[in-house]
Amino acid sequence: MSEKHFLHGFLNPKSVAFYGANNKGGSLAAIQIMNLIKSEYGGNVYPIHLNMESVMGFKAYKTISDVPEIPDLVVVVLSSKIVPQIFKEIGEKGTKKIILISGGFRELVGDGENNLTEQINSIANQYGMRFIGPNCLGVFNNWYQPENEDSAFNIAIWEQIRKDKFSIASQSGTLSSHIWFSPDDIDLGLSKSLSVGNEANIDIVDCLEYYIEDDNTEVIGLYIEELKRGKKFLELAKKITPNKPIIAIYVGGSEAGNRALKSHTGSLGGNSRIYDAVFKETGIIRTNYVQEFLDIALVLLRAPLPKGKRIGIITNSGGPGAMVANNAEKHGLSIPEFSEDLQNQLKKMLPSTASYKNPVDCTFDMNLPYFYITLPELLMKSGEVDAIIQYGVVGFQDVMDDYLKNAEIARHAEFPHLSDEKQDDLAEKLLQPTLKNSEKYSVPILYVSPMRYDSPWSKRIRNNGAILFKFWDRPVNALAKVCEYLDFKLKRR
Amino acid sequence: MSEKHFLHGFLNPKSVAFYGANNKGGSLAAIQIMNLIKSEYGGNVYPIHLNMESVMGFKAYKTISDVPEIPDLVVVVLSSKIVPQIFKEIGEKGTKKIILISGGFRELVGDGENNLTEQINSIANQYGMRFIGPNCLGVFNNWYQPENEDSAFNIAIWEQIRKDKFSIASQSGTLSSHIWFSPDDIDLGLSKSLSVGNEANIDIVDCLEYYIEDDNTEVIGLYIEELKRGKKFLELAKKITPNKPIIAIYVGGSEAGNRALKSHTGSLGGNSRIYDAVFKETGIIRTNYVQEFLDIALVLLRAPLPKGKRIGIITNSGGPGAMVANNAEKHGLSIPEFSEDLQNQLKKMLPSTASYKNPVDCTFDMNLPYFYITLPELLMKSGEVDAIIQYGVVGFQDVMDDYLKNAEIARHAEFPHLSDEKQDDLAEKLLQPTLKNSEKYSVPILYVSPMRYDSPWSKRIRNNGAILFKFWDRPVNALAKVCEYLDFKLKRR
Repeated sequence: MSEKHFLHGFLNPKSVAFYGANNKGGSLAAIQIMNLIKSEYGGNVYPIHLNMESVMGFKAYKTISDVPEIPDLVVVVLSSKIVPQIFKEIGEKGTKKIILISGGFRELVGDGENNLTEQINSIANQYGMRFIGPNCLGVFNNWYQPENEDSAFNIAIWEQIRKDKFSIASQSGTLSSHIWFSPDDIDLGLSKSLSVGNEANIDIVDCLEYYIEDDNTEVIGLYIEELKRGKKFLELAKKITPNKPIIAIYVGGSEAGNRALKSHTGSLGGNSRIYDAVFKETGIIRTNYVQEFLDIALVLLRAPLPKGKRIGIITNSGGPGAMVANNAEKHGLSIPEFSEDLQNQLKKMLPSTASYKNPVDCTFDMNLPYFYITLPELLMKSGEVDAIIQYGVVGFQDVMDDYLKNAEIARHAEFPHLSDEKQDDLAEKLLQPTLKNSEKYSVPILYVSPMRYDSPWSKRIRNNGAILFKFWDRPVNALAKVCEYLDFKLKRR
Repeated sequence: MSEKHFLHGFLNPKSVAFYGANNKGGSLAAIQIMNLIKSEYGGNVYPIHLNMESVMGFKAYKTISDVPEIPDLVVVVLSSKIVPQIFKEIGEKGTKKIILISGGFRELVGDGENNLTEQINSIANQYGMRFIGPNCLGVFNNWYQPENEDSAFNIAIWEQIRKDKFSIASQSGTLSSHIWFSPDDIDLGLSKSLSVGNEANIDIVDCLEYYIEDDNTEVIGLYIEELKRGKKFLELAKKITPNKPIIAIYVGGSEAGNRALKSHTGSLGGNSRIYDAVFKETGIIRTNYVQEFLDIALVLLRAPLPKGKRIGIITNSGGPGAMVANNAEKHGLSIPEFSEDLQNQLKKMLPSTASYKNPVDCTFDMNLPYFYITLPELLMKSGEVDAIIQYGVVGFQDVMDDYLKNAEIARHAEFPHLSDEKQDDLAEKLLQPTLKNSEKYSVPILYVSPMRYDSPWSKRIRNNGAILFKFWDRPVNALAKVCEYLDFKLKRR
């Protein structure tokens, strides 16, 4: 259905012209064309350049009127002063969609003093054109060719990102583009990203209208400095959040925050309380932290939504268990003491030094199938918890392999090295039953390890589709936010 | 001076006997001996084992009485029931220091019902012995042989950790040992780590008494579930914090937290407000997050202490600047608008689309020496800021090198590859003047990048000794906590 929305064409153009590109790495337009090349864009590319014969291997044209077809989309990276003239030329050519990367519009001088924004809007209206920007970093569509894993329509992001169902609309180019540089501690990918900049013509509300119908968007992330169409936003968000959670970073309300906004996109910021009320009413999940923004999206995408706020903690170490319990309660989650019946069942399968009231502390003496399969299953089946945080996902084989690198140790130690294949098998056997139970009982399980995120065992956990965090701080916070969203959904019933 | 404290011998023994070790990787005592081997411990090692001739290459003895010298230290990993007997044997041998790893004491049954703890304490008193534990993970001393970079006296930590001046005393073995598994997103090392477990004989107060005099301890980290000697702790902490900051995680106060504690170390937890009052009075920096615990230590160790709470923000992107400003104000830091004079100076050196009121947003069009040297220097010299957070520490060469891997791009792109050597030089030239200024003006500067922590440019920044964070959430929070400590110091004057 989203094909009918006008933004569809911005994300799926068959041909793109570029103003401002050359072959130099430092040039933003060149980077955009390089992104297209890297992401295997198959459409036509038309650089517009007064002097160059070709740009990045694509034949260049002196003016857009020389281009042999009407480009679906034009990207403009030029000094703001000449943008009105360029808009007219694009209008004359017949292209209806422009991405205006350039800054130097509303954010530099007050709205009143500056008529550049009005000028370009008026030209756009005259020719029936819509434009994204100014002062933005462009767009990214990871589902441009769904069947080609490596492809995207991408002028915005420096690296290849895995296809996912998280879509972003952002008044900051960094949030839409640069945080996707090497996501190295989270298994989150991206669906679509729209950097809306100053929103002179297209705003976040337009993006929401597009995402509501988009099948490849299951969770929406927003970075908001100012809402220009507050009422429309409210209406639309209410329609979206029952089905697709929205996570928002809103920056404003503080003095320095508002000052920063004024110079960033020229927005006026606003009263944080009003925005809080809007977010609360619409069930939008608010966070001030970029890492949390990503973490919440990950949990929402990869795990079933919990049915309540009761957290079961499984750990092989008391400290992290206590810290998780403490932080969870501080964030409005509950860590119920298990029923006597459940405690008795746990007691039977745990070592004598273990504890089983919640947190369940298996101690170091644990049996892997119990730890990964039996205990989580028991908790999920019990109906006494709505989500599980499990600490102690340690790659013992990795630790042992590391010791065996020492020649003196290797001479005496009596522990085997499991082959990579056997370890893969083991991880699958330990993880898959639990992930299936997680779906079956709708009880999310978040794994936590103190080891490197890219250590071999951590990778095996992640390759099974499990959600893994390094340290226990982030999963608790993310889960608390997911449960705020759950509250909203439960209240609406 | 710390040599005179009785804990010195626990961290610098010339000989160690081990109860419970074998050659199997899963055994905790074996891991401890492997840690000693890996960390190049040069002293004598005596495994005590009824049947084995040798353990991990060290000749084993049937009883401690057979050991040919009086070991400085004995480590015990045995079932709790036989520990009293073992303590007697150790006492008869003449050893005065024991690390009791085993659990199964106070944490399992109530203090009243269980006399095991009393028994071992009474035996220890009888023989004039002191012991760490039970229910602990042992000790780590990275300065056992200061001249040997690879060496440590280490029975507690699985990997080699860089020598640093951060020392830990913890009622959780995870906080003292396992969080030091591959610290992969922070340039923090460790000085000493003491896992005190149930504190039957030696407690956190003893550790503080030791750390106050220890030249290799500049910042102290505590994990606290319960303070057994509250008054003494208060007195001592007051003496320490004016010179050596203390960072504490206190877990307790919440219902589930207290339940977790009871089963962890058998402690009674307590009222979080009382602990808050203690921390406030003593200037102890409190955090609930393990990542923040480490981040605060890093900032305190690597940067000069700021003189106030006024933060200057330098960024090449509006969004992160606004988010830093927003979060900083929320956490009690101030982001002052710069004086007209400073604004004019900044305006002269920035591109026309930049902003300069604070945050300073250089935009993407920035010149590296301005970004890394001139701007920070101007801010530091101005006297208008007490600390700087600088976002946009991006390795453009890394980005370009990545594009050049694409054959099509490489054919056309006109940007050079700087050699590694030249990039090293560049980083040094860009960073060193600013790090010197940071010390000179006592204005800490925290760098922030969206790129991988181990990307080439990020590594270059870090190799220069600069503090680098991925994303801008953590540095703001850490700086806010450092400034709470500063408040305490300023009030004491």
